[in-house]
Amino acid sequence: MDDKVDLAEKFALLDEPYKPGIVGYMNDYKLIVVKVQGEFVWHKHDDTDDFFLVLKGILDIELRDRTVTLSPGEMFIVPRGVEHRPVAREETHLLLIEPTGTPNTGDAKTAAARKLV
Amino acid sequence: MDDKVDLAEKFALLDEPYKPGIVGYMNDYKLIVVKVQGEFVWHKHDDTDDFFLVLKGILDIELRDRTVTLSPGEMFIVPRGVEHRPVAREETHLLLIEPTGTPNTGDAKTAAARKLV
Repeated sequence: MDDKVDLAEKFALLDEPYKPGIVGYMNDYKLIVVKVQGEFVWHKHDDTDDFFLVLKGILDIELRDRTVTLSPGEMFIVPRGVEHRPVAREETHLLLIEPTGTPNTGDAKTAAARKLV
Repeated sequence: MDDKVDLAEKFALLDEPYKPGIVGYMNDYKLIVVKVQGEFVWHKHDDTDDFFLVLKGILDIELRDRTVTLSPGEMFIVPRGVEHRPVAREETHLLLIEPTGTPNTGDAKTAAARKLV
């Protein structure tokens, strides 16, 4: 964790969609890489904004009133409390920033496990 | 600030090295784009880790005991309190994450002004 991180190398270590890997820590936040494909669940985070940066592929972030479509090099921050559903038409690579301890569905019971990669 | 951000578009709006632009807010943090070229000053941040992601170019992050060289798609987090000096051999594009209010030199008196882009 005290050296540089090559994000492409980290993505190569991820074997399943929606199984995130932690690639670093900054203060009380974790930097996460995740491959997504298909639909995630509708959810919201009441205590944190939700940061997405697309590095490969295309991500639709469905909101209740519109859809935000992100291509590589595009980012979007879903404000806290806003329901959203990420949907990827193809294998898509994301960099996420989350407060330490945030479950990815906004609910610890349904959240995907994290691993350090 | 409620729509997606195309980072390449934001970089195109930056006209000078080391003049950062804020492209979004996440909780108490700001997302910043900056073009760098040449040497920055030696500095440290006593209260925050310092996140760098290179999107274009090459960045040497000189530490007192070694140099970390970042290419596009590589990130590094300088731990709080650690002296460092960013040096870019060519025009280099960075995405940074900083707590709201952090001066880029660790010292408000010498810090570069921020603008929303």
